[in-house]
Amino acid sequence: MVVETQEERPAIMEKLHRVGITNLKTVARINWKGRTYTFIPTFEITIDVPAEKKGIHMSRLIESITETMSEAVEEEVMRAHTSLEELEKCIIMRLERKHPHKRAEVWIRTSLILERETPASRRRSLESYDVEVGVIKHEDGRFEKVLRVTVVGNTACPHAMANNQGKTHIQRAVATLEVRTAFDEEIALEDMIDVVESSFSSPTYTLLKTIDENAVVQGMYRNPKFVEDVAREIIHKARERFAGKLHVRVISNESIHKHDVIAETWS
Amino acid sequence: MVVETQEERPAIMEKLHRVGITNLKTVARINWKGRTYTFIPTFEITIDVPAEKKGIHMSRLIESITETMSEAVEEEVMRAHTSLEELEKCIIMRLERKHPHKRAEVWIRTSLILERETPASRRRSLESYDVEVGVIKHEDGRFEKVLRVTVVGNTACPHAMANNQGKTHIQRAVATLEVRTAFDEEIALEDMIDVVESSFSSPTYTLLKTIDENAVVQGMYRNPKFVEDVAREIIHKARERFAGKLHVRVISNESIHKHDVIAETWS
Amino acid sequence: MVVETQEERPAIMEKLHRVGITNLKTVARINWKGRTYTFIPTFEITIDVPAEKKGIHMSRLIESITETMSEAVEEEVMRAHTSLEELEKCIIMRLERKHPHKRAEVWIRTSLILERETPASRRRSLESYDVEVGVIKHEDGRFEKVLRVTVVGNTACPHAMANNQGKTHIQRAVATLEVRTAFDEEIALEDMIDVVESSFSSPTYTLLKTIDENAVVQGMYRNPKFVEDVAREIIHKARERFAGKLHVRVISNESIHKHDVIAETWS
Amino acid sequence: MVVETQEERPAIMEKLHRVGITNLKTVARINWKGRTYTFIPTFEITIDVPAEKKGIHMSRLIESITETMSEAVEEEVMRAHTSLEELEKCIIMRLERKHPHKRAEVWIRTSLILERETPASRRRSLESYDVEVGVIKHEDGRFEKVLRVTVVGNTACPHAMANNQGKTHIQRAVATLEVRTAFDEEIALEDMIDVVESSFSSPTYTLLKTIDENAVVQGMYRNPKFVEDVAREIIHKARERFAGKLHVRVISNESIHKHDVIAETWS
Repeated sequence: MVVETQEERPAIMEKLHRVGITNLKTVARINWKGRTYTFIPTFEITIDVPAEKKGIHMSRLIESITETMSEAVEEEVMRAHTSLEELEKCIIMRLERKHPHKRAEVWIRTSLILERETPASRRRSLESYDVEVGVIKHEDGRFEKVLRVTVVGNTACPHAMANNQGKTHIQRAVATLEVRTAFDEEIALEDMIDVVESSFSSPTYTLLKTIDENAVVQGMYRNPKFVEDVAREIIHKARERFAGKLHVRVISNESIHKHDVIAETWS
Repeated sequence: MVVETQEERPAIMEKLHRVGITNLKTVARINWKGRTYTFIPTFEITIDVPAEKKGIHMSRLIESITETMSEAVEEEVMRAHTSLEELEKCIIMRLERKHPHKRAEVWIRTSLILERETPASRRRSLESYDVEVGVIKHEDGRFEKVLRVTVVGNTACPHAMANNQGKTHIQRAVATLEVRTAFDEEIALEDMIDVVESSFSSPTYTLLKTIDENAVVQGMYRNPKFVEDVAREIIHKARERFAGKLHVRVISNESIHKHDVIAETWS
Repeated sequence: MVVETQEERPAIMEKLHRVGITNLKTVARINWKGRTYTFIPTFEITIDVPAEKKGIHMSRLIESITETMSEAVEEEVMRAHTSLEELEKCIIMRLERKHPHKRAEVWIRTSLILERETPASRRRSLESYDVEVGVIKHEDGRFEKVLRVTVVGNTACPHAMANNQGKTHIQRAVATLEVRTAFDEEIALEDMIDVVESSFSSPTYTLLKTIDENAVVQGMYRNPKFVEDVAREIIHKARERFAGKLHVRVISNESIHKHDVIAETWS
Repeated sequence: MVVETQEERPAIMEKLHRVGITNLKTVARINWKGRTYTFIPTFEITIDVPAEKKGIHMSRLIESITETMSEAVEEEVMRAHTSLEELEKCIIMRLERKHPHKRAEVWIRTSLILERETPASRRRSLESYDVEVGVIKHEDGRFEKVLRVTVVGNTACPHAMANNQGKTHIQRAVATLEVRTAFDEEIALEDMIDVVESSFSSPTYTLLKTIDENAVVQGMYRNPKFVEDVAREIIHKARERFAGKLHVRVISNESIHKHDVIAETWS
């Protein structure tokens, strides 16, 4: 006989908006252009709890995740999980049959590796990007999604350049673009990455032969930018391409300071 | 002749909400109950930039911080910096004379060490807490503040206890309480810490002799709590004591799982 | 005409032991039991530099990694990369043809997901483990490897149990086992994980239905252990199963304290 | 009646080299040039455990730390704690009277803020450095210490400069110097910081007015360095000034790549 403490009335009656599991590393599988990809993201999954229930059944959240990815549903993977947000919606659909709730969220953090061509030798370079995708089922049944990409680029300071006969300080910079929008809005993470990557003084590459390195160096000097300029260019381009609420945050790891500089904006 | 690139018109005209400096570690000094305390927090300081200015003068933000804490203003420290938010307001005041802006924010992250008494041997134990305080000057001139405390406690699972004749799983848990309120609202970080620390299955202590350890262990078994219970108790107590918008987040580092569980709510 | 600054004589002539690339995230592929697995680990790859050369050609290190994993060598993947250390040795072999050096190291950090069976309901639970593998080619041509696994388990304090009529404090604990040995020594990461995971008060599981949770709880109380006991059991079992130098480190995230306790030993 | 489980014979008899407390944040106080400084470092303190004892009494380690810093010993602070290593030795001395052991270690991690003068405007700039100091009492009674400083500087690539008519990529770099030596060897952390900070393409500053920024930028271009050059200069200077075993590690956060480059050496 199992006591279901979760179903009891709590001493303090307060509705909770987000209760669940976080920092869970497990296997996920999506069908991307006809091929199954397996990766190991970090999950967060939460539901709301009404004021009169003491707690939730955490294991049912785990089951919603693992069953969605299991061998038994290989067919569903091929059919349904064509993006991180489709995968997350499938998890919420499965959770609906397992645990009563009004509001649910699933978040996935992972890395994407994309193929780029180096600027001069035209070699193939594999580049990594941190991405985070969340799907929120609201109390009114509406599905919303949040897409976040983080890209490593650089800034070459225009102020120092103007004051030092073309010499300047240059540094690595990291920018994050977030789009919050309706679930059905079609937005590719790859397109968001393009918007961010093309807004720095130069993109960065994993592989650079000397002629490529020269091209990147020349590009940075032709294209000096404050962290403010990078933020402006990202939000400007994003607004033209993506419908939704936007948030941009650029951090520049200044080479002349021990601290970072930041530019952040939203719309 | 210095070129002031920051004053130029940018290629893309977008207002930016937050531009400045982050991850700056420097010395700060406050006068707490008549004595000057020196510590090394991490600062973030930002202002807005209008659409028609290319950038901000970052060094003036640094000067606002360092001058506010300098020897030259020792008197001001004794008189004015009686809390982290007073210190931050002084930085914004100084910044107003240095750099035009409509909106400004200063954030400080640091640790507090408070003295506690152990539960049985009544010894003195020094406990550490992470705190973060932000002051925001809005475009209408209104000052708002955000106070955050993070406390390490524990949870003893009531569900496992009910199903295992009083045995259960216990683990470290970490809770954060945030209050967002008017600048003049008097709220002590120590009181916020009390609210959080008293909401776990038991508080934790740095020093525990065997009789103290016994008292803590007995306390945890008398007081089993889900992460949901901890979140409810914190927000319930906080609402009674602090005027403002509240946000509570509790993470329990489950001893039976590799992942964490989370309860989050706000009002 | 490219200037090869790396080949110049440096101002200060000092031999350097380890020069190269770190924190590189890219795709890796291994053939595990006849099937190709793709994952995204973090790489570090270094070589030594003699006193009379200014620097190394970093891009050749990148090429050694990416070519080893490229489509063109799919056959090599199927044949040769049957473990992380085989993959790393292939990278060093490729590097030998690209860049002169006497000593080389390749390190890979990644996560492994293994299938476990829950203790009572006998369900399938996927568990994640952090692993790190390094291969070192020494100046005498000898290949050495370093294998590290990090496992999340728990400790139930025997001292509190003896003083509280069977009640005690319990917490998450994290243990790392390192084996440093000859390259040809056959040691499976899975076996190292088994040694560590079986040495806690109980293993932890991602999925636990109530009857499983009960089994884990009962197991922890039957099996109280200090962090010292966990360290001893790991090194004792490891010595019986694995030939090589051993290092064990156990950190227990105490539920009654804000700090951690540690036990570390080696042989 | 307290059961002292720690004194029991363990099931597995293995000597353990390091057992104790880690990640403890508490108050420390030293007397530096006649003035008492208070700060909040992170401590690790460990002792060895013989094969025939089950565990150690953790609370006595805590007491050794807190009593060493307590108000009651204000006089001792003024007399004895003139450096981090003196403070740590006082903790070990106190521990000797509390808990039998043969070998003990105390480690402190904290930040130092030092005053610098900016290169052109000659203003005062406060700079932060991460430092870590360990004192080890060996089984033969000999005291050894380990001093580590971490400094943020930069590198301007000489290879790109030679191939791009004086243009190059520049980035933040972080270097750590470790000296392991006899306890009585007099080595100031400030001197170690000087050795590291003067070995980059340029030092970095918190406050830089435009004329200072120009001086730093010009300095970086006059002084291009590979990460290899920085490592060589540090170990070369350190060998001339400090008696002991040296370890140098330089990480450059490349502005043209997403990964870092590393140079490491020791003697």
